[in-house]
Amino acid sequence: MKSRKLLMIPGPIEFEPKVLQALGAPTTSHVAPNFIESFGNCIALMRKVWLAPTGQPFVVAGTGTFAMDMAAANLIEPNDNVLVISTGYFGERFAEIAKRYGANVTILASKVGDIVSLDDIEKALSTKKYKLLTITHVDTSTGVLVNPKPIAELAKKHHTLSILDGVCSVAGEEIRQEEWGIDVVLTASQKAVGVPPGLALLVVSQKALEVFNNRKTPVGNYYADFNNWLPIMKAYESRQASYFGTPPVNLIAALEVSLLQIVAEGMDNRFLRHQKIASAFREAMMALGLKLLPVHKNLSANTLTAVYFPKNTTGSIFLSHIGKNDVILAGGLLPSHKTKYFRVGHMGSVNNNDIIATIAAIESALSASKFPFEIGIGLKTALKILND
Amino acid sequence: MKSRKLLMIPGPIEFEPKVLQALGAPTTSHVAPNFIESFGNCIALMRKVWLAPTGQPFVVAGTGTFAMDMAAANLIEPNDNVLVISTGYFGERFAEIAKRYGANVTILASKVGDIVSLDDIEKALSTKKYKLLTITHVDTSTGVLVNPKPIAELAKKHHTLSILDGVCSVAGEEIRQEEWGIDVVLTASQKAVGVPPGLALLVVSQKALEVFNNRKTPVGNYYADFNNWLPIMKAYESRQASYFGTPPVNLIAALEVSLLQIVAEGMDNRFLRHQKIASAFREAMMALGLKLLPVHKNLSANTLTAVYFPKNTTGSIFLSHIGKNDVILAGGLLPSHKTKYFRVGHMGSVNNNDIIATIAAIESALSASKFPFEIGIGLKTALKILND
Repeated sequence: MKSRKLLMIPGPIEFEPKVLQALGAPTTSHVAPNFIESFGNCIALMRKVWLAPTGQPFVVAGTGTFAMDMAAANLIEPNDNVLVISTGYFGERFAEIAKRYGANVTILASKVGDIVSLDDIEKALSTKKYKLLTITHVDTSTGVLVNPKPIAELAKKHHTLSILDGVCSVAGEEIRQEEWGIDVVLTASQKAVGVPPGLALLVVSQKALEVFNNRKTPVGNYYADFNNWLPIMKAYESRQASYFGTPPVNLIAALEVSLLQIVAEGMDNRFLRHQKIASAFREAMMALGLKLLPVHKNLSANTLTAVYFPKNTTGSIFLSHIGKNDVILAGGLLPSHKTKYFRVGHMGSVNNNDIIATIAAIESALSASKFPFEIGIGLKTALKILND
Repeated sequence: MKSRKLLMIPGPIEFEPKVLQALGAPTTSHVAPNFIESFGNCIALMRKVWLAPTGQPFVVAGTGTFAMDMAAANLIEPNDNVLVISTGYFGERFAEIAKRYGANVTILASKVGDIVSLDDIEKALSTKKYKLLTITHVDTSTGVLVNPKPIAELAKKHHTLSILDGVCSVAGEEIRQEEWGIDVVLTASQKAVGVPPGLALLVVSQKALEVFNNRKTPVGNYYADFNNWLPIMKAYESRQASYFGTPPVNLIAALEVSLLQIVAEGMDNRFLRHQKIASAFREAMMALGLKLLPVHKNLSANTLTAVYFPKNTTGSIFLSHIGKNDVILAGGLLPSHKTKYFRVGHMGSVNNNDIIATIAAIESALSASKFPFEIGIGLKTALKILND
């Protein structure tokens, strides 16, 4: 499917060979003892990766958007007030989803590349009673990183549930779901979790499940209904098979392999690795004279970086130069800025080789574009940080 | 994941090695030219497999139940009248889903193992105006086969849309969607389509899309909304990338391989192969003195067979004898009869070797259970039919 070109987009990413082997292995029955063991183990491992020892994991066939949909459909009832803290495309999407389930949505949107201030969030929470708020941890469209910890604290203080869209962050950016008191942390398999696309993954707090259990109206979305999935998750975790829909056996087998690798690395080590590689990449871009989309490098994610194309270049031509150097990067996603920037994913199994090769390909494209810069300065900058 | 034991359950099934290879191949970007080509090709190939030259295919990450949910959520508005023709567990499920979207549901349920008569369906359609009706082609819980052709004709006559739950039939049982005038034919990847679980697949008629386009209320389910997916399907078919959710790249690559194999076999050949193998298996079971769950063999599916356990045996022990003979079969699913019968899947890449081995394993289990029968009679009966 893929040549040896490096896939450095914000998902799908480069996957570990053992994960791909598990994915392509002959499928077993969804009630086979070894599959029951794998599925049950995935549920237990998710709690470790999410750092949510009492949370309830869900593993369901779907995309990251389905994970958002599942959180919203189960926790929102018509006329609930919902506060969406938006730093880009996926914040807007969460607002659209919440409205679909009848919420009165208030959007606090940042300027492009910036975040919403804690003051503004506190002000909003003090003005109106919100049932829940949503945070996009890393908006894949902008590469902006939001610190969810103080927002979750504010939410708790105001008796508001917090949902963290961690599609581009879980298992890459630091998240301590339970310690930080976040009620739902959701993601998709193909990002830092390191499994090809097709799985929606959520961990839900007991408090959020209690709110769910006290619903007055049925969940608007049948497939997403926790009532359908909760008995399945509980059954497999206690090493019993149970049926609602056929679980995506191969993807779940691959998930177990990846989660075991993640837990073996250790969450703190993993967060640090992502931070170091991201820092090396960001500093390299700035040393080359390129500008990041986040207004300050401290707002830049550790899982992906959004960079403006160099002045006087056409984005598509610049990206094709990079492609000729065997690295695949992504274009922009934010409608207003789509043609002005590119995105580089560096998460999951990403290593120093990958990021060095990516910087080299960008330097080669800059040379081909006759952009004035000192050749090697990006590589040198990155290497110093990586070797620190 | 699986040993060399034969997996003869009604999905997941034994998959072709080339399909598994595609699934486990290194993941490419969802906007890579070769993936765009694969996805576009899948959409075109689905029309050939569904025999629906003007239908609109949808390929979305999810289960078969999600495919049912997608059909219902998009075509039902609150207070619509919906007629569910039920032959088991999955008919009941369709009724539950339709209710979730506000439908007034009438269920015409058959006795266990039987079908609903055309007279009863015609009577229902004449009594009340129904917006749509649902048919379970093969109910995976009972192995009962319904002939959808005359029901679709009745629906057409009464200006009612028809939805065929083909989860356990598409690419195995004869379906000529367009010739027969069925508005939606839906399935999941892990059955006769021959791809590990994780994809919901639908083909929707232009008439149904027109009904969808004239909706007065928004679709209750965000993830399932045709409005989100239609532009994506059209883009990829015209060999352009487009984004709503990250497509399950590896599953779609595997789907292309399987659909190419199906089309290469030819739909008529494929229907015949399924009929012949099913007939050999049914006749073998009857020759052994076992009873089918369908009340008449003509009502028995060609993709799976439900068989009552032999008298005076305990189901779980009987199935474990079969397991010791390296064949994996499934237990019952219909709550009222769950412990009384077992189910054998014979679809997709199933071949004569598989069915002969399965019959041999059942004969061995009968011997171990001290069931009175002539050893070899099942095998002999089957072989005669297979060699015909």
